[in-house]
Amino acid sequence: MSRDICIYQEFLTEAHKAQIQAACQETGFVPHFFTLDQFEEAKACLQHCEVLYAHSADLLRAAPATLKWYCCSFAGVDPYCKNPGLFANPDCLLTNSNVYGVTIAEHVVMVTLMLLRRMPEYLEVVRNHSWSNQLSIRSIRDNEFTILGTGDIGRHVAERMRGMGAAKIVGLSRSGRPHPAFDQVYPISELDAVLPQTKILVMALPSTPETTHILNRARIARLPADAYVINVGRGTALDQVALADALNAGKLAGAALDVMDPEPLPKDDPLWDARNLIITPHVSGNMTLGYTCDRNVDLFCADLKNYAAGRPLAGLVDRNRGY
Amino acid sequence: MSRDICIYQEFLTEAHKAQIQAACQETGFVPHFFTLDQFEEAKACLQHCEVLYAHSADLLRAAPATLKWYCCSFAGVDPYCKNPGLFANPDCLLTNSNVYGVTIAEHVVMVTLMLLRRMPEYLEVVRNHSWSNQLSIRSIRDNEFTILGTGDIGRHVAERMRGMGAAKIVGLSRSGRPHPAFDQVYPISELDAVLPQTKILVMALPSTPETTHILNRARIARLPADAYVINVGRGTALDQVALADALNAGKLAGAALDVMDPEPLPKDDPLWDARNLIITPHVSGNMTLGYTCDRNVDLFCADLKNYAAGRPLAGLVDRNRGY
Repeated sequence: MSRDICIYQEFLTEAHKAQIQAACQETGFVPHFFTLDQFEEAKACLQHCEVLYAHSADLLRAAPATLKWYCCSFAGVDPYCKNPGLFANPDCLLTNSNVYGVTIAEHVVMVTLMLLRRMPEYLEVVRNHSWSNQLSIRSIRDNEFTILGTGDIGRHVAERMRGMGAAKIVGLSRSGRPHPAFDQVYPISELDAVLPQTKILVMALPSTPETTHILNRARIARLPADAYVINVGRGTALDQVALADALNAGKLAGAALDVMDPEPLPKDDPLWDARNLIITPHVSGNMTLGYTCDRNVDLFCADLKNYAAGRPLAGLVDRNRGY
Repeated sequence: MSRDICIYQEFLTEAHKAQIQAACQETGFVPHFFTLDQFEEAKACLQHCEVLYAHSADLLRAAPATLKWYCCSFAGVDPYCKNPGLFANPDCLLTNSNVYGVTIAEHVVMVTLMLLRRMPEYLEVVRNHSWSNQLSIRSIRDNEFTILGTGDIGRHVAERMRGMGAAKIVGLSRSGRPHPAFDQVYPISELDAVLPQTKILVMALPSTPETTHILNRARIARLPADAYVINVGRGTALDQVALADALNAGKLAGAALDVMDPEPLPKDDPLWDARNLIITPHVSGNMTLGYTCDRNVDLFCADLKNYAAGRPLAGLVDRNRGY
C-alpha cells in the first residue's frame, strides 16, 4: 500500500510540483495535487492519506484518524489550535510555514517610511495636483523600534531596520530570550514599561488568548504622541476603536494596519477614515510573492524528509501554546 | 580686520549656530547669521565677507570679488555652474553639501517597495473601502537594480538594497570607476546595453548638459515591460512625455518621480494621471529631516577647518564639470 500525501494548494507552479514529486520519490511517498476548486476530490483522496499540505479547516475536518501530519502553508495557525476538535487524530502533528518574514518585513519597511515621511499627507497633496513639500519628516536612521514578537517576522524586520541605521531595536516575546537581531529582548510582561520609550511599535504576534487586545486603550495611552503603530500580526491584537480615537485626537503620530478585526473591514467602519492611518487589505504576508511560494515548498519538502526519517519537524507547532 | 562669514539659512537651530560659532572661534572667523527674510541685511553684510554659506543665486550675485568660498547647502549646484557670471571672483571656491544620501535613499526604498508591492493600485482599493488582495507582488530580495549615478545618493541606495537582499546592483557613472557598493560600475556610455537587463532603474544624476534627457524615448523603449523607473536626481534627466506614454501603454510596470521638469508640475499636466506613477513634490532630499540638517552643519564646519588650514575642501565642486 502506498503512503499518500494530499496537497490542496492554489499557488503551486509546475516547478513546485516537480520539486515535491522529487522529494516524495526520495522518501517513498505519493503526492496527489488538487486546486481549491477540487474540494470534493481532495476530500475523497484524503481518506487514505497520511499527510495533508493545505490551509483549509474544512478539509482538515474531513480527514480520517489515520492522518498523521497536517502541514499548514500559512504562518498563523490559530484556527487549528483554537479548535482541537478539527483533528480526528488527537496526536496529528501540526506544522506551520514561517516563510513570510521577507515579504512582511518589506511591507513593514514600506509603511514605516510612508509614516515617517508623511506620505498620507503627501498623497493628499498630490491627489489635488498641488505642490507643497515642507512637512517635517523623520528617518529610520537613529530611530528607536519596539517589536512585539521576536519570531521569523520580527527578526526580519529588525535586520532591515538595523541595516538602515536604527539606533535601538527592542524585542518583546513570551520568554524574553535574547536574540542577536535585537539590542534587548524583554518578556512581554514588561510591555507597559517599554511603551513610553517607543517611537515605532511593530506588532507581529500570533493570535492566542494572551495576545487578544494586548494593545488596549490604556497601553495606547502610554505611547508618546509622536509614536507610530504598525500591525502585521493579527487584527485582534489591538483595540481598533481606541487606536482610531488616539489617531483622531492627535495622541499618536500615525499607524499602519494590514490586519483588521474583522476582515474584510466593513465598508462603513469609521477606521477607514482615521487620521494618518495607512490601511492595507491584509497584503503583507499572502502568497502573492514568488519568493514566499518558493520557500513554502522548500520548507514542506525539507520537513517531508525530516518526517520520513523520523527527525523532528522544523515547523512543528505546540497546539496548546498556539504557535 | 575680522574674517567674516555670511550665513543665510532657514534651517539652523540654536544648537547648529553654537556649533558653527565654536568652529569659527577655533579658526579665527566671525559668523553672521541671517534668515531668508533678511536678504537685504545679508547682502549688506556679505560685502565684507570672505565666505558665504547659503543656497541663493541672488545673494551670490551680490557678492564682491573678495568672496573666496561659497558653500552651498544643497547637493545640486547646477544653477551656479551654468552661470559662471554669478561669481564676481572667477576663482571663488564652490562646495556643495553631499548630505542627502540617507534621506533620499530612504525615499527610494519607500517608493521601490510601493511600486513592487502595487501600492498605487492598493491605495485605490482602500480609497473605495474595498478589500481585494491578490495582486502579484515582487520583492527587493533577489531583484536587480541599475543605479544611474554612483555618488553619495547612489551609494546609500545601493547599500540599503544590498541589505535587503538585492541580487545584483549595477552602477553607471561618467568614469565607470568601481565602488564596493556596486557589483559592477559601467561608464555611462554603456547605458544602452544595460537597460534591457534592468528591473529597477534608479536615477540620481546631477543636472549637466550630458544628463539632460539621458533617459529619452528610445532608451525608455529599451527597458523591459516589467521594469520600474525612479528619479530622484533632476527632472531634466528624463523625457517626461515619453515616460507617461510608456506607462499608459503598459510598456513599463511603473515609475516614481520626485523631481519634475518644470517644478511645480503644472496643475493640468497629464503626467499627474499617468498609470502606476507615484509623484511626490520634490520631498526626497529637502531640509525637512533633522539628520540632513545636522550633517549639513557638520560638513560646513569640517570644511571651514580645512579652509582655514589651507587643506583641500571635502565638498569642492569642479565648476566646469558641474558636480
